[in-house]
Amino acid sequence: MHVHIRPLQPADRARINDIVISSGKFTEVETGVALELIEEALEKGEPSGYIVAVLEEGEGQPVVRGYVCYGPVPLTDGVYDLYWIVVDPSSQGKGFGRRLLEHVERDVVARGGRMLLIETSSQQTYGATIRFYERSDYDLTARVRDFYRMGDDKLIFSKNLK
Amino acid sequence: MHVHIRPLQPADRARINDIVISSGKFTEVETGVALELIEEALEKGEPSGYIVAVLEEGEGQPVVRGYVCYGPVPLTDGVYDLYWIVVDPSSQGKGFGRRLLEHVERDVVARGGRMLLIETSSQQTYGATIRFYERSDYDLTARVRDFYRMGDDKLIFSKNLK
Repeated sequence: MHVHIRPLQPADRARINDIVISSGKFTEVETGVALELIEEALEKGEPSGYIVAVLEEGEGQPVVRGYVCYGPVPLTDGVYDLYWIVVDPSSQGKGFGRRLLEHVERDVVARGGRMLLIETSSQQTYGATIRFYERSDYDLTARVRDFYRMGDDKLIFSKNLK
Repeated sequence: MHVHIRPLQPADRARINDIVISSGKFTEVETGVALELIEEALEKGEPSGYIVAVLEEGEGQPVVRGYVCYGPVPLTDGVYDLYWIVVDPSSQGKGFGRRLLEHVERDVVARGGRMLLIETSSQQTYGATIRFYERSDYDLTARVRDFYRMGDDKLIFSKNLK
């Protein structure tokens, strides 16, 4: 199956909206923030601080199956943050998350970056997500206790890209 | 001496600019970011996500001696971030930093917040700054190695306000 990663386009809005909601992983507020960043990226381009790439599957009329949103961390020398990575739940297990993450890593290096950070909730990282980052050679570099709410820590994974 | 803490006003721009530059603690890029947040706060008010308070000294024609910029952390339940706290170097040692920090803590509690975070560079926290946070009962809760640049970590201090 043909798989292709390309920059975000305005016509991707509806599919991304569907993917974020159907993933079932995010609260209403989180969904709102995710879609706000998509709007920012479409309106302002890279000056927004957000870079968005989408993965599409199929030829002729390819369908968007997932996306990533990442960008440089202000005041750092070559550090990038992965803000969102979401794959359509009906397309899980095909390695699309890995393809998107590898795309980000290559792009960050091409931009002169040296480190990619992924911040995530300790609640969300039960099971599949934490194993995905570990398999992708990310280290748990820091934990901010009770960050999202009491008992729900912020975990910061990092990978040196150089 | 009369000391008063009040919300930011447009007329404070020039003094804040002077204080940030004369502090000698920030690079040109950092100074730019600090002043950008002031503009955001003046233009959009609290929807900007930034709350700014200034400390002024003297009666009749009081002079601004320092300021703080803080705000709620998106997607958290009651966590606030202290983004900047700066006191005019000619007014150091008068407890103005402590007064500003205590003002922020009270205001965060009044807004229903439960925790204040302070992110800082391991390079900047040599000496006075780190001792200031420790004396104010902040704990070093996390460290992201090589965050700002190689050898310059991000330190995250936190204080439970409840």
